[in-house]
Amino acid sequence: MTVTVGVLGATGAVGQRLVEHLDPHPQFEIAALTASESSAGSTYRAAAKWRTGTPIPEDVAEMTVTRTAPSAVPDDVDLLFSSLPSAVGAEVEPAFCEAGYVVSSNSSNERMAPDVPLVVPEVNAEHLDLLEVQRDERGWDGALVKNPNCSTITFVPTLAALSDLDLERVHVATLQAVSGAGYDGVTSMEILDNAVPHIGGEEEKLETESRKLLGTFDGAEIVEDSVEVAASCNRIPTLDGHLENVWIESAEPVSIEEVTTKMTEYPSLPLHSSPDQLITVFDEPDRPQPRLDRGRGDGMSISVGGFKESPFGVQYNCLAHNTIRGAAGASLLNGELLLDRGYL
Amino acid sequence: MTVTVGVLGATGAVGQRLVEHLDPHPQFEIAALTASESSAGSTYRAAAKWRTGTPIPEDVAEMTVTRTAPSAVPDDVDLLFSSLPSAVGAEVEPAFCEAGYVVSSNSSNERMAPDVPLVVPEVNAEHLDLLEVQRDERGWDGALVKNPNCSTITFVPTLAALSDLDLERVHVATLQAVSGAGYDGVTSMEILDNAVPHIGGEEEKLETESRKLLGTFDGAEIVEDSVEVAASCNRIPTLDGHLENVWIESAEPVSIEEVTTKMTEYPSLPLHSSPDQLITVFDEPDRPQPRLDRGRGDGMSISVGGFKESPFGVQYNCLAHNTIRGAAGASLLNGELLLDRGYL
Amino acid sequence: MTVTVGVLGATGAVGQRLVEHLDPHPQFEIAALTASESSAGSTYRAAAKWRTGTPIPEDVAEMTVTRTAPSAVPDDVDLLFSSLPSAVGAEVEPAFCEAGYVVSSNSSNERMAPDVPLVVPEVNAEHLDLLEVQRDERGWDGALVKNPNCSTITFVPTLAALSDLDLERVHVATLQAVSGAGYDGVTSMEILDNAVPHIGGEEEKLETESRKLLGTFDGAEIVEDSVEVAASCNRIPTLDGHLENVWIESAEPVSIEEVTTKMTEYPSLPLHSSPDQLITVFDEPDRPQPRLDRGRGDGMSISVGGFKESPFGVQYNCLAHNTIRGAAGASLLNGELLLDRGYL
Amino acid sequence: MTVTVGVLGATGAVGQRLVEHLDPHPQFEIAALTASESSAGSTYRAAAKWRTGTPIPEDVAEMTVTRTAPSAVPDDVDLLFSSLPSAVGAEVEPAFCEAGYVVSSNSSNERMAPDVPLVVPEVNAEHLDLLEVQRDERGWDGALVKNPNCSTITFVPTLAALSDLDLERVHVATLQAVSGAGYDGVTSMEILDNAVPHIGGEEEKLETESRKLLGTFDGAEIVEDSVEVAASCNRIPTLDGHLENVWIESAEPVSIEEVTTKMTEYPSLPLHSSPDQLITVFDEPDRPQPRLDRGRGDGMSISVGGFKESPFGVQYNCLAHNTIRGAAGASLLNGELLLDRGYL
Repeated sequence: MTVTVGVLGATGAVGQRLVEHLDPHPQFEIAALTASESSAGSTYRAAAKWRTGTPIPEDVAEMTVTRTAPSAVPDDVDLLFSSLPSAVGAEVEPAFCEAGYVVSSNSSNERMAPDVPLVVPEVNAEHLDLLEVQRDERGWDGALVKNPNCSTITFVPTLAALSDLDLERVHVATLQAVSGAGYDGVTSMEILDNAVPHIGGEEEKLETESRKLLGTFDGAEIVEDSVEVAASCNRIPTLDGHLENVWIESAEPVSIEEVTTKMTEYPSLPLHSSPDQLITVFDEPDRPQPRLDRGRGDGMSISVGGFKESPFGVQYNCLAHNTIRGAAGASLLNGELLLDRGYL
Repeated sequence: MTVTVGVLGATGAVGQRLVEHLDPHPQFEIAALTASESSAGSTYRAAAKWRTGTPIPEDVAEMTVTRTAPSAVPDDVDLLFSSLPSAVGAEVEPAFCEAGYVVSSNSSNERMAPDVPLVVPEVNAEHLDLLEVQRDERGWDGALVKNPNCSTITFVPTLAALSDLDLERVHVATLQAVSGAGYDGVTSMEILDNAVPHIGGEEEKLETESRKLLGTFDGAEIVEDSVEVAASCNRIPTLDGHLENVWIESAEPVSIEEVTTKMTEYPSLPLHSSPDQLITVFDEPDRPQPRLDRGRGDGMSISVGGFKESPFGVQYNCLAHNTIRGAAGASLLNGELLLDRGYL
Repeated sequence: MTVTVGVLGATGAVGQRLVEHLDPHPQFEIAALTASESSAGSTYRAAAKWRTGTPIPEDVAEMTVTRTAPSAVPDDVDLLFSSLPSAVGAEVEPAFCEAGYVVSSNSSNERMAPDVPLVVPEVNAEHLDLLEVQRDERGWDGALVKNPNCSTITFVPTLAALSDLDLERVHVATLQAVSGAGYDGVTSMEILDNAVPHIGGEEEKLETESRKLLGTFDGAEIVEDSVEVAASCNRIPTLDGHLENVWIESAEPVSIEEVTTKMTEYPSLPLHSSPDQLITVFDEPDRPQPRLDRGRGDGMSISVGGFKESPFGVQYNCLAHNTIRGAAGASLLNGELLLDRGYL
Repeated sequence: MTVTVGVLGATGAVGQRLVEHLDPHPQFEIAALTASESSAGSTYRAAAKWRTGTPIPEDVAEMTVTRTAPSAVPDDVDLLFSSLPSAVGAEVEPAFCEAGYVVSSNSSNERMAPDVPLVVPEVNAEHLDLLEVQRDERGWDGALVKNPNCSTITFVPTLAALSDLDLERVHVATLQAVSGAGYDGVTSMEILDNAVPHIGGEEEKLETESRKLLGTFDGAEIVEDSVEVAASCNRIPTLDGHLENVWIESAEPVSIEEVTTKMTEYPSLPLHSSPDQLITVFDEPDRPQPRLDRGRGDGMSISVGGFKESPFGVQYNCLAHNTIRGAAGASLLNGELLLDRGYL
């Protein structure tokens, strides 16, 4: 009883991670792989230039890549995962939804649209109900669900765990891996022996997406959370794993023990890709570290550590695997949630 | 009319930078090089294993290294630069001062001692007057002056430029280069494809040293500034250059233009190693970057950029060369100030 | 029916890889972990500072580390894996063998001793028969078996596959990962944005160990192969995976097709840690690459590619995971061979 | 008495190095900067996105970039330095020569053309006489001179120093920096924690260009040297500086002392950019290293070390700065030679 799925933008860095995780997935079976016009007609092996570090799944390797259009995808595909460049996503995702496909998308377009659920299942699964509003307004048979930006996903679950503390202010500095920009996004001459204190549009995503994710669905719309977030984003020479320094301030003083207890106890979900323990708290002051901890929970865990009282509240560090928990795994998990909640 | 100087701990990473900058210095002439017992008696060439990237100065290379004790240093040396490990510094620096030497030290011991001037010449040259208190209290003919920690030096000049804005709160996240830990301080397996969100004691240094540096000398003691600093420190895979994300909050709202104008106009000093322009403001949002900008002003400039309004004030990034402006050059500059103010 | 084993030098980089692979091993069960005097009495968790990238095995974490001496290891341990520093290995390994233990060692001491088998199971399993000579000569109840140096293991299987081509000369240039020097072996300041064209003693190991491995056991001694090897070794900024450029020359001309066919068809062994396919031949000219291919065959495969006619014969590139196939996995595989051949 | 020069392809990585070195050059004055159509009309500051690590020369920054065509370059420009992509160079360089310009080019097109001098001044300055043949055959008022590929330049001077030893065979393995591929040539995901054992066409360049450089001009053509070169090329994660492992074989045995003496005594030239000492011999076995030694002689020296007897002759390592000695400085030096020999 598997669901037939497709990957839009299957040859990119996130697309390859999707294929890597979909191939052995017990609930999904790949039936369509799309890419740009120039790759259409090639085998996936030829088009993808596979480079994840694990061997390419041999059966998927021989599939033929199609162009990215509803007419090129078989009708019996139930669910599409999209890792298209946002400009392309903006153009074609609505066409797929119009044609009746359910799309779980990692692309940044329409993430902040009022009728598009922006979902991290363990944080705000109930936002999926917004799809009824979406279908009403857009007249779609299909549906469009988004996961947030990789750097947003890394710290939002830690804030969600503290939701009853009434957080008022958050400062966050990110140390982001190069894979977050895609395979060709950062040149070696830009980043070797260097760091770049700017990622276009990233700080705004952290500041706005977190308020939507932490908000509540009142039956008609998402009411954003009131927390104020100030973000500063940096690219550093790591391959995978976004590390973030976080300072939180709440109306009432809060202890480190209270914070770590809430994070440890914050529940995961019984979905296939959700880790048993969503947030892992490290006692060692120098953890989490990208290379050592990004693989935890098969790349789907959030790791935290370095808790300390700051003059203004509490500070800590958090880490997630940016192309798994922060991208491919995020879309996949939204697909699992859609299946679990009966949308497929 | 040159001053005869020595270097305590001349073989380490900062010691080598000191030698590299002292060799062509017009005011100073190296007459003594000390190291640990095991190196005493060797040539500097043999003891240092030179590795700065420039050729070792040939005349200095043939000098004999002595052990680190007052009796091993010629009496006619007027000024000692110290880059000793702090435990060693704590033990021997007072002995040198007692023996009449003036010591400009980069070691972390006694930086926060009430009668030890902690000085960045362009920021608080007037704190040097504390030496009278020091000599009174300790009965020394010599004197001990400290420069702050490399990560402190990077952002304090930018706060000093804003001193009349009445800053109340500062958040700072650092992305620090491996050279800050000394030649053997960070192993390659720790840092390749990785980042470490912890540097022992570093956050406390940023928080406390900055208040002392920005304080005022009232004739008897340093009255610390009231700014509250919350710091989070990270080691990343860069060789030289500490990059820092800074958020400032003041009682009254302040504009980006006001901030950048004050930084641009903040004066340098007419000392040999002071750059013409102390703080360089970049318009490009992705600058400063460690590899591209650490060499500016021969490694003695502070570079800033990425100015943006945050929900709570203004945020920006700053950068300085950690082993030049942040260590060897800092001690050297304090030596130049001591000479200029008649302490030699 | 598992064999009780111990790890000598269990806290180092190779020791941790041994523990990581022994914990889930179906034939072996860890009963002893030794380290230096200073770690004895601690839990393995405290002593090891675990850093392989996978979580520490929880049951092993709570075991108590002992010092490295026969009296400290339970008598019922059947097999010891040794990843001791070579000076320590030279001192204590004979004592363990004297006391009746069978030792499969990765340490470089005694690798070239005439009565010590130097073994890569898929290449020269029959050299194990030299143990009878060893027991005769040394009067041991135990036994000492060595695996070669990591850079030797990487290219020797490719030469073994060509054994009937009568190779006369081999040139090999290595690009070696930092983990080959142990956790603290290469500092970050040595290797970031750099390469070091020297690894002490390494070139000699490649040149001499390969002749012993490719030699034949005549019932009394190993008769070395006559191939002449010229090696040049480099350390580069990679974490794991030694890449090697190889040029071969034979008396008779040889075609690329002949070479790749022999490598593809070279048999593996039915031991637990032997990969199904020992040597994987890549058609893509830019493979193998350390990060992409070191994990193949769970780190136990040899990958080759870049075949080209040179003016003097054939050239190609080969790659193996240096701390798995080249160290921990090599010792483990020798242990499996010892079990298979009835030495335990 | 300065010569008016222009730079074709001034905005690329090598073009920026050319501008960096031409700006303070005592013999040349920049009067023209060309780039692709899309940059024409912009200031050099806007078009270049300067990133050499030194500040952009302020006077050059304000110059207007033109398109790359003879009609766009002032007539009074005497010499053009070309760092165009080879496809573009193949198209436009002949047009410039036809129009009367003397072109010193780093582009790879036509390097092996029989009537184009391929020159490293200290090695084969006399090949410049081939220009008479070129002008006869092509009917040009201008002239086209090439410098070799960066990896060829690194080792050819060391072979030239040994020219009377009658070398028969050379093996060379290269460890090449990412800047050799241009600013966008190598992505960070390709090279972080990795090495790539393939650079398209590079091995052939080493093998063929070296024979032409070491050849002799017989008045009519270049008679290639008979040395056989087998090359294997690798890209590694260094920014600048190509390191090469070299094995040489000669008909008669040769001692290390003989080799190092010849290299040390090999003469430089009295041209502005030639270093005082062309080849620097290191005694330390682990030198030269890219980061430590690429800057020697302002990036124009060749450094060698690691001399050792191999079973077949002598082996050593050599290093040069690939974008200075191997590219921009190489073209510049050829320009200085052209001036010195009266071609301007």
